[in-house]
Amino acid sequence: MAGAAVTGYRSAGAVNPVTVNSFAGEIGALRPAVRDLVRRRMDVLAPAYRLMYAEPLDVSRAAGAYLFDRDGRRYLDLYNNVPGIGHSHPKVAEAVATALTEANPHTRYLSEAVVDYAERLLETFAVEARPPDRVQFCCTGTEANDLAVRIARAAAGRVGVIVTQHAYHGSGGLAVEASPSVAPGEDWVFAVPAPLDGDPAAFAASVSAAAAELDARGFGCAALLLDSAFTSDGVVTDPIGLLGPAYAAARAAGGLVIADEVQPGFGRLGDGWWGHARHGVVPDLITLGKPMGNGLPIAAVVSRSEIFAAYEPAYFNTFAGTPVTVAAARTVLDVIIADGLIEHARSVGARLLGGLQGLFGPAAVRGAGLYAAVDIHDPAGRPDPAATAGLIAALRRRQILVSATGPGGSTLKIRPPLVVTEADIDHFLEVLDDELPRLVG
Amino acid sequence: MAGAAVTGYRSAGAVNPVTVNSFAGEIGALRPAVRDLVRRRMDVLAPAYRLMYAEPLDVSRAAGAYLFDRDGRRYLDLYNNVPGIGHSHPKVAEAVATALTEANPHTRYLSEAVVDYAERLLETFAVEARPPDRVQFCCTGTEANDLAVRIARAAAGRVGVIVTQHAYHGSGGLAVEASPSVAPGEDWVFAVPAPLDGDPAAFAASVSAAAAELDARGFGCAALLLDSAFTSDGVVTDPIGLLGPAYAAARAAGGLVIADEVQPGFGRLGDGWWGHARHGVVPDLITLGKPMGNGLPIAAVVSRSEIFAAYEPAYFNTFAGTPVTVAAARTVLDVIIADGLIEHARSVGARLLGGLQGLFGPAAVRGAGLYAAVDIHDPAGRPDPAATAGLIAALRRRQILVSATGPGGSTLKIRPPLVVTEADIDHFLEVLDDELPRLVG
Repeated sequence: MAGAAVTGYRSAGAVNPVTVNSFAGEIGALRPAVRDLVRRRMDVLAPAYRLMYAEPLDVSRAAGAYLFDRDGRRYLDLYNNVPGIGHSHPKVAEAVATALTEANPHTRYLSEAVVDYAERLLETFAVEARPPDRVQFCCTGTEANDLAVRIARAAAGRVGVIVTQHAYHGSGGLAVEASPSVAPGEDWVFAVPAPLDGDPAAFAASVSAAAAELDARGFGCAALLLDSAFTSDGVVTDPIGLLGPAYAAARAAGGLVIADEVQPGFGRLGDGWWGHARHGVVPDLITLGKPMGNGLPIAAVVSRSEIFAAYEPAYFNTFAGTPVTVAAARTVLDVIIADGLIEHARSVGARLLGGLQGLFGPAAVRGAGLYAAVDIHDPAGRPDPAATAGLIAALRRRQILVSATGPGGSTLKIRPPLVVTEADIDHFLEVLDDELPRLVG
Repeated sequence: MAGAAVTGYRSAGAVNPVTVNSFAGEIGALRPAVRDLVRRRMDVLAPAYRLMYAEPLDVSRAAGAYLFDRDGRRYLDLYNNVPGIGHSHPKVAEAVATALTEANPHTRYLSEAVVDYAERLLETFAVEARPPDRVQFCCTGTEANDLAVRIARAAAGRVGVIVTQHAYHGSGGLAVEASPSVAPGEDWVFAVPAPLDGDPAAFAASVSAAAAELDARGFGCAALLLDSAFTSDGVVTDPIGLLGPAYAAARAAGGLVIADEVQPGFGRLGDGWWGHARHGVVPDLITLGKPMGNGLPIAAVVSRSEIFAAYEPAYFNTFAGTPVTVAAARTVLDVIIADGLIEHARSVGARLLGGLQGLFGPAAVRGAGLYAAVDIHDPAGRPDPAATAGLIAALRRRQILVSATGPGGSTLKIRPPLVVTEADIDHFLEVLDDELPRLVG
């Protein structure tokens, strides 16, 4: 069983995404105001902090899909997926400020706000075959994935976790252990290649082989933990149906399936609320985060009550599910629905993906809705991280923000706030068309 | 070495603090409005959620040291330490709303707010012998303790962690593994009795014995992780100097010391900013949380740059150190200083502690500033959890909120917002004096 598709976690050759598109510390080249702030920052923040771009961006204002630097220059933001309904959304500010002036008790007191929001959130899953019926709030995707793995272990009576080779599921707890893109990994984690070839059967076979290997190591398979769009592995959204056989393979091995919707969720893929639902599959546990509160720290594990019940230790999270962050999350749901942002993501995303395919060729482009990836190759057809970095820097000069992902950092990552307009996308495609001849062969 | 003081983690007989003072699910006895909301809540929130009090409190408004229920009844809050500068502080609401309307980028963009706050935060440690010089922001105390343990392990080149037998350091990650009060524990964790007898030498001896046992298990001692006021072990704040020998014992065994200031920190003990500094000791890593943002999710690990540098994996936390939560944290520092809340905690706390000693006898009362604990005994001098629960319920009826802690749940826990007044404390003491004869022998 443990054939060629099985490669150990530590041999995955993961690229640390932090090193892609990072400020390398060339302080002397910066403008004085930026230089002074970078110096002050380096003097007080821990050494793990990184800035993006060779010339870091000093953000003083943000609105919709735009960031403004200290000099008032406007940047089209095609990268930030946390402010899903747009930067500095006035309705979020208003709802949060109201909750802050009323009350913000933790969840051991009664508060209608958290109940109301949980009801509304569960409605977004109602179209699924076996919809989840309970919510456990957390503050971050890290906490949600850590807890989801603990619950899966308790429910499965097993320990091992299968992830993909460049997955990112969080920065701490069991989530970072299960993130080959940042951590060296533990023996109970096994990483399989993401299905970049779009072959559901081959992907399922590698999950089965991984489960067999985890059995051989004595851990067994507690969970298959998958980002529903493989966003840290280079973005894989198609074909529809891609996830079904892999889910079945994990279950055949006695494991549960955790759908990590931290990046693909909340309508970004332009086809319903959740990335897994797009593939017609039913996870056992679903984790939510990033855009959930438009920048306020709120995240969740969503599942069925009998699965939650398997986890015995008390779980209480002081800041999670309080009226302030719930007010932001409720506003996000309301605005996505009222402004038709899922349909908007679908139509504007189709324009984006079509334009990228026209410029780079259909084979280089993956994605759905407003999550797009473009593989950048050299003239010989090899991945070209240098050209990717050059393109990102050129776009930065033209006041358009994107970044890179994937093995080797040679994949352009594009995931704007959902409120980006057709005109914004057209402008981006025009600038790309202008810059590309100078950068890519 | 591994003598009588050494008891294994699993034998600690920890009491799950969630079961103390919890609503037991007797829905029929509740008023209709509360009952309906409790039912709706149980239908959508995960089964781990608990409510405090036999009649849960439906909070509709909060201000200063008061909570108001849906019927407008006012409760004196002597329990919530998260809103340290007072519930619904208008300056927090204003600062957060402003940040939400300006910009809220993550820390890979430049933002003066996070640099400015980190500078201000480090100033609170400047009086210490070897002050920390770097900050790593997180969203929760759980994340901070998880990261601190990872950093300590990397710096020490060891794995084991020493905690106290009823410690609580978080709900996930390595923090929950190191929390005997909620988790069954891992072999790399060893729990020693908290120094309730106030004997620094005996406490240090048990730390040495624990380190020897961790050596024998092959883990070695990476860290001694201590709440600087042992708040989950029943609160131990004295004598001054209590922590020094234990810190030295951990270091002699090759470990680092992590001061968990999530509960004692930010001036609550009425004697400087931090619980460890009160004892004149210098930790290697310090973790902050709960009151840091007055209810907004913000936490931190504070340490020296060379210790941070030992931890190699990338650390990035999407929501941590963003302008919105930093605005709240900055306001907390400003208000504590401008309103003299540390001195206030000292003077009002002295009144509280003196009053409690008068009612219960000096031997039953521990604490400092506005963190107080009272051991409740039966007439034969044995811990009396039933009388403790009865007292909490009686105070709840009299519209005063406290809760319980410690082994067996027989210790009253009192930790009001720092803005509680002398009149509030006098009222509490009068009500106690009135209720006690009916409850405690």
